[in-house]
Amino acid sequence: MMKVDLNCDLGESYGSYSMGMDQDVMPYITSANIACGFHAADPMVMAETVKAAEKLNISLGAHPGLPDLMGFGRREMAVKPEEVKNYVIYQMGALMAFSRSGRLHHVKPHGALYNMAAKDFTLARAICEGIKETDPNLILYGLANSELIKAAQSTGLSFAQEVFADRNYKEDGSLVPRNQPDAFIIDEAHAVERVITMVKEQKVKTVNGKWIDLKPDSICVHGDNPKAVQFARAIHAALKTEGIEVTAPL
Amino acid sequence: MMKVDLNCDLGESYGSYSMGMDQDVMPYITSANIACGFHAADPMVMAETVKAAEKLNISLGAHPGLPDLMGFGRREMAVKPEEVKNYVIYQMGALMAFSRSGRLHHVKPHGALYNMAAKDFTLARAICEGIKETDPNLILYGLANSELIKAAQSTGLSFAQEVFADRNYKEDGSLVPRNQPDAFIIDEAHAVERVITMVKEQKVKTVNGKWIDLKPDSICVHGDNPKAVQFARAIHAALKTEGIEVTAPL
Amino acid sequence: MMKVDLNCDLGESYGSYSMGMDQDVMPYITSANIACGFHAADPMVMAETVKAAEKLNISLGAHPGLPDLMGFGRREMAVKPEEVKNYVIYQMGALMAFSRSGRLHHVKPHGALYNMAAKDFTLARAICEGIKETDPNLILYGLANSELIKAAQSTGLSFAQEVFADRNYKEDGSLVPRNQPDAFIIDEAHAVERVITMVKEQKVKTVNGKWIDLKPDSICVHGDNPKAVQFARAIHAALKTEGIEVTAPL
Amino acid sequence: MMKVDLNCDLGESYGSYSMGMDQDVMPYITSANIACGFHAADPMVMAETVKAAEKLNISLGAHPGLPDLMGFGRREMAVKPEEVKNYVIYQMGALMAFSRSGRLHHVKPHGALYNMAAKDFTLARAICEGIKETDPNLILYGLANSELIKAAQSTGLSFAQEVFADRNYKEDGSLVPRNQPDAFIIDEAHAVERVITMVKEQKVKTVNGKWIDLKPDSICVHGDNPKAVQFARAIHAALKTEGIEVTAPL
Repeated sequence: MMKVDLNCDLGESYGSYSMGMDQDVMPYITSANIACGFHAADPMVMAETVKAAEKLNISLGAHPGLPDLMGFGRREMAVKPEEVKNYVIYQMGALMAFSRSGRLHHVKPHGALYNMAAKDFTLARAICEGIKETDPNLILYGLANSELIKAAQSTGLSFAQEVFADRNYKEDGSLVPRNQPDAFIIDEAHAVERVITMVKEQKVKTVNGKWIDLKPDSICVHGDNPKAVQFARAIHAALKTEGIEVTAPL
Repeated sequence: MMKVDLNCDLGESYGSYSMGMDQDVMPYITSANIACGFHAADPMVMAETVKAAEKLNISLGAHPGLPDLMGFGRREMAVKPEEVKNYVIYQMGALMAFSRSGRLHHVKPHGALYNMAAKDFTLARAICEGIKETDPNLILYGLANSELIKAAQSTGLSFAQEVFADRNYKEDGSLVPRNQPDAFIIDEAHAVERVITMVKEQKVKTVNGKWIDLKPDSICVHGDNPKAVQFARAIHAALKTEGIEVTAPL
Repeated sequence: MMKVDLNCDLGESYGSYSMGMDQDVMPYITSANIACGFHAADPMVMAETVKAAEKLNISLGAHPGLPDLMGFGRREMAVKPEEVKNYVIYQMGALMAFSRSGRLHHVKPHGALYNMAAKDFTLARAICEGIKETDPNLILYGLANSELIKAAQSTGLSFAQEVFADRNYKEDGSLVPRNQPDAFIIDEAHAVERVITMVKEQKVKTVNGKWIDLKPDSICVHGDNPKAVQFARAIHAALKTEGIEVTAPL
Repeated sequence: MMKVDLNCDLGESYGSYSMGMDQDVMPYITSANIACGFHAADPMVMAETVKAAEKLNISLGAHPGLPDLMGFGRREMAVKPEEVKNYVIYQMGALMAFSRSGRLHHVKPHGALYNMAAKDFTLARAICEGIKETDPNLILYGLANSELIKAAQSTGLSFAQEVFADRNYKEDGSLVPRNQPDAFIIDEAHAVERVITMVKEQKVKTVNGKWIDLKPDSICVHGDNPKAVQFARAIHAALKTEGIEVTAPL
């Protein structure tokens, strides 16, 4: 039986600031990437998010970001590999302490850290070393075909190749950047169909019409607005209809 | 054989800012309270401090503070017990992840958090619950005879009663506040003698001449200037001379 | 002709975090208290908020808070008067630089800073000195009958006595704290009627039935949810109906 | 009579963290670039630094940085021009409010912001627009021959071309990066001689032996260690001996 994971970034509120519709999207996902206080979240938000995810048996992942709350971790910064490694260790540890078991399931870097490491093996490797030193049994979630995946392989870390339902791909496997016109796939039916093709046929049509190969272990969905939640629900339903098991990777 | 621990706050540098003479004081202490990024420290500083302490077999403790870097965690804040608990969990977890074993030995709250909890059972209890949920085997370091010790007892947590070599005590067992003239004991020989009396006779002379009982498990020393380091060395030497074993509590 | 001001806290978003319905409440207010980056806001939010307020000729005020973004400036902190003074100067300056004229109209402390200073003359005085050194022509907005008003008088600063439409008062003129059952007046018609009474008769009925005197120069309204905006609109309309001019103090 | 300015970065302490020997270097400089709370400094430090500089009639400049205290503003960040502009306005305003006159003399960007803008006209232009909107009479201090100078010219802003006494130059006028072996000129006599040549002959020998033209309006010196202070004193003395007036630009 085919299997795939549905993951979503959660716990990105901060203090009096609320973000995301975590409660609404949780029923449709199998793994949660939980913010750890650098780009978003504070200890109260983390405690609450972990508790909610555990109640639904959603697999817990750390979602470490750059130390840039003002920029929500979305601005690239000239961080050194050693800094990246220690930022990952710090954030993983902080989140682990909130889980009932003291353990996590996976780590997915956030925003600019994710994007930089997808292209830069040295940074990707630093992330993997941070994970390995903290808990070598965790799974790295990274952009399919990216340096993150290569770094996990070279470090001996398990990994899950992540694909995006609502984003267009370039021929090199990278995403069309957010500030470009073709970045997003807006039509829900079209996006759902793409996801099914990615999972069943392990390929995706790039923005300029060429097909590239992908091995999707996990599909990233969002929960930051009502349409995103509805979208997550539609993908979840379509996967079930197709007989694909929705489950977190082991 | 009599035993006592010597503890010191370490790893309180931040980014380009350096604080403390950690390398110099380490040879004289048996347990380290390591800052966790709220009142001081960043992931780079924590990684380095943990490594240095492990090399010398110094027992590792978390030194969680209030989220107030600008005030170095020394300003009391109206934090709720639930916030305190989660701040402790977060900071403990972050530090644990840097240790080779993934475990700590103790937790000693910092600055205003320590002082507030020494007087307020509810906050002290929140700290103990944070520790217990994260790792029930850890030891709480708290002001001798304070609410911190009572909270540890009521939570079933191990504790170490801490005394201060260079501070004057009031009759209620609290420290004479820093901003009062008699707060500090400046004469080294006098302070060393006090420490020996506290450890051997389990009592201390308060600022107004009365004696109060104490059970010192750990003596707090400092490493923030050359005199403090020299002082730590003198206490360490005097304890050995008196045949008192200097060792971290089990 | 009777006059009163309607003020509202604005510009409390931060980075990717949105807060408040600033655009919706602006048409009903005559002065804006704009967050300055300590408890809320960042330079982008401030630039945008100042521009929007200037377009509607709303009087610009600084809304300085404690350095506690995580607590939204609502947690009391043991800050020294000299710190408070410099925090006010810093935040006023930062906001002034965004205004077209380089000048402000007033200053209203935020949250815990407001509440602490309402009761503590020394802190209130420190705020007034900060304002006076930065621009002695500005108006301090403070809780009617509080230490803030006394400090403004003693410093020779102009002031506006502020009243709250939706809050119950205690006999000493302070507000019933937010965490108590009677803190808020929920019925809109009742609140509007209270406002009109406060403005026309200069008195208010306290939570235990006694009347106290007040001289309302400005009424604080909120814009943090659709009901609050509707409420601001109702007060504005009622004041007009009563023939009371809604205008910022000079 | 020939003239040149000596400038130094000051006020880079933060909370309990001390940095720089401000008091020692102040007697030798004519203009101060004062940190504004983003990469370093807090309101207490700013108040104190402004007061000390005013006492010695040192010209006051804002030293705005990126919002990265942990990295001391030395890590490049992918900030948008609009963000840069508003960060500059915010920080200038905050500092202005501490000065006796409410005015500044100049603005010199800090660290990574300085370096990015030296190469990137769009960012340099954003800085100049921020200055112009806040106070069009101020002088931009920027790397000689860089995009910062071009942006000042194109914005109609006064500027001062800055040279470095202790740094080697590349043929394109940029500095040899800090992490390269030839970055610094360590020999004091050699550095002093270079400075005199730069000021009198308006040229400097690059790291590969070629001479390039420079028009030094201001020489940057440091005050972060005893040697740096001694160096500033030596340059000051040598300029006087050569009959060159040491004075801030008008």
